[in-house]
Amino acid sequence: MPQNMTITACLIALDWGTSRLRAYLLGAQGQIIEQRAASLGILKIPAGEFDATFEQACAPWFDSHGPLPVLLSGMIGSRQGWVEAAYAKCPAGLDETAANLLRFASARQRQINVVPGLSFESDAGVPDVMRGEETQIFGALEDASAGVFVLPGTHSKWARVEAGKVESFATFMTGELFSLLLEHSILGRTVEGRGHDTSAFRRGCEYGAQSEDGAGLLHAIFSARTLALFERIAPAHRAAYLSGVLIGAEVHGALRWIGAQARDITLIGEAALCDLYLEAAHTLGARARIAASNVTARGLWRIARAAALA
Amino acid sequence: MPQNMTITACLIALDWGTSRLRAYLLGAQGQIIEQRAASLGILKIPAGEFDATFEQACAPWFDSHGPLPVLLSGMIGSRQGWVEAAYAKCPAGLDETAANLLRFASARQRQINVVPGLSFESDAGVPDVMRGEETQIFGALEDASAGVFVLPGTHSKWARVEAGKVESFATFMTGELFSLLLEHSILGRTVEGRGHDTSAFRRGCEYGAQSEDGAGLLHAIFSARTLALFERIAPAHRAAYLSGVLIGAEVHGALRWIGAQARDITLIGEAALCDLYLEAAHTLGARARIAASNVTARGLWRIARAAALA
Repeated sequence: MPQNMTITACLIALDWGTSRLRAYLLGAQGQIIEQRAASLGILKIPAGEFDATFEQACAPWFDSHGPLPVLLSGMIGSRQGWVEAAYAKCPAGLDETAANLLRFASARQRQINVVPGLSFESDAGVPDVMRGEETQIFGALEDASAGVFVLPGTHSKWARVEAGKVESFATFMTGELFSLLLEHSILGRTVEGRGHDTSAFRRGCEYGAQSEDGAGLLHAIFSARTLALFERIAPAHRAAYLSGVLIGAEVHGALRWIGAQARDITLIGEAALCDLYLEAAHTLGARARIAASNVTARGLWRIARAAALA
Repeated sequence: MPQNMTITACLIALDWGTSRLRAYLLGAQGQIIEQRAASLGILKIPAGEFDATFEQACAPWFDSHGPLPVLLSGMIGSRQGWVEAAYAKCPAGLDETAANLLRFASARQRQINVVPGLSFESDAGVPDVMRGEETQIFGALEDASAGVFVLPGTHSKWARVEAGKVESFATFMTGELFSLLLEHSILGRTVEGRGHDTSAFRRGCEYGAQSEDGAGLLHAIFSARTLALFERIAPAHRAAYLSGVLIGAEVHGALRWIGAQARDITLIGEAALCDLYLEAAHTLGARARIAASNVTARGLWRIARAAALA
């Protein structure tokens, strides 16, 4: 690609999670010069193969651009990853994160820096953790210094940010529970497909949220069984309904946990999932917007700048 | 057994659920003359084999005592069972249940009666159902006409009884979710065994209950992961902790759903499970007692009397 030859590359930045690896070659203003993605998440790589996998993804960039610094974020810094980077404690912003980078040299003497995840301990003395999401939040924070950021997924994260620092956050096992219930519980037996249906999803949201002030989620999910038993919800809409119950319970619980400030939230993540949460938030009376799609590369760039890597 | 020859048998009563069949030969005061149990729950019996299975369990009693009436309760009356008995609607007591028995003749012309399950529809328009538990409640009600009855299990039931009638009830998928999370989720990966530990269980109860007024269960269960990650709970105690979180959430949600009346509850079921719920109830400030162990046979007898079968 001859047009790249005139742009100076400054950083190789990787978002390396459990299922995927995304690598960015970034220029002097943090712009993306090149990027690549592969299904090389840490759960797919045998122990001891992280260095080789990294070279496989990034060696061509070193060959073309010389000894660039490298910044990694995500589960690659967990106990199951390449090296374990201790969590930075909340409140933590760019400076605290930059100050806690884990630095080491790879087999080929590349200068590798790993973003620490964040930990937060509640008043009840129970810790919570994130790895990778903090980088996305810092990317989305570029236009603001405060807000509530929601990263939906297998383990959704809700984070409260003040003055550029993540003050507190909470994890919700919504996505994992949805899959478990569909695949292994009695609720999945009469479900046909996982297609979306707005009406069934909203009905589930409202019931899930309302139940959070009543009998709770253990009761609410059983409605997916009884509504099916009495044929009040079509087999093709049952997955959407159950998804609504779970996401409605999550959103209601998270809003209650965060308080009034949480009525205005920013969603970060895959478009289809953000759309679901947008729908849930609106159904439950919260204002929500979806962050730009490039927040991960922006977050990595901002951390690199704060650490004077680039 | 010669001593039985002088006692007149009046009823063959079966509690026939998904995993087990329990059969009772009852005398003129409802006393148990003989009983047998087998792992012949309806999920283990091929369609079309219910009649033969019934004969296998009860033919000797007909041979010895002649054409006794038969009363069945439990999932045998469900769509997956021998015949489907339509639910009786709450409020329902002995009379409503007796009036809604499903009657039919078996292949050998035995007179079979099936106890209907109960259904309840909440103000939110969501139905709930039970099959078999109503019989246990009627058995436990012998000494009282009102109360809150809790039947813990895969799908726990909480029922509010007034003037001998089940007014309302709610199902909680606690036991099923506990198994799912231990067997298939990330929470089960670092658990060693399912042994009980009172301290870990109570800690879980308190956190699960407290979370019901905060971020909710989807967040609370993640504590089983983070407390393990930070090694604040021993591998051998993690199952007890998670069980506590779930049961604590159930008990708190159920008490909130039922209201102040629910501070005094009667537990019905397997001794070890009732002990756990007793511990949870006491931890969360509710008064609880465990019902006598023979409530199923008593309930079948009381329904049979109300229906003039015996």
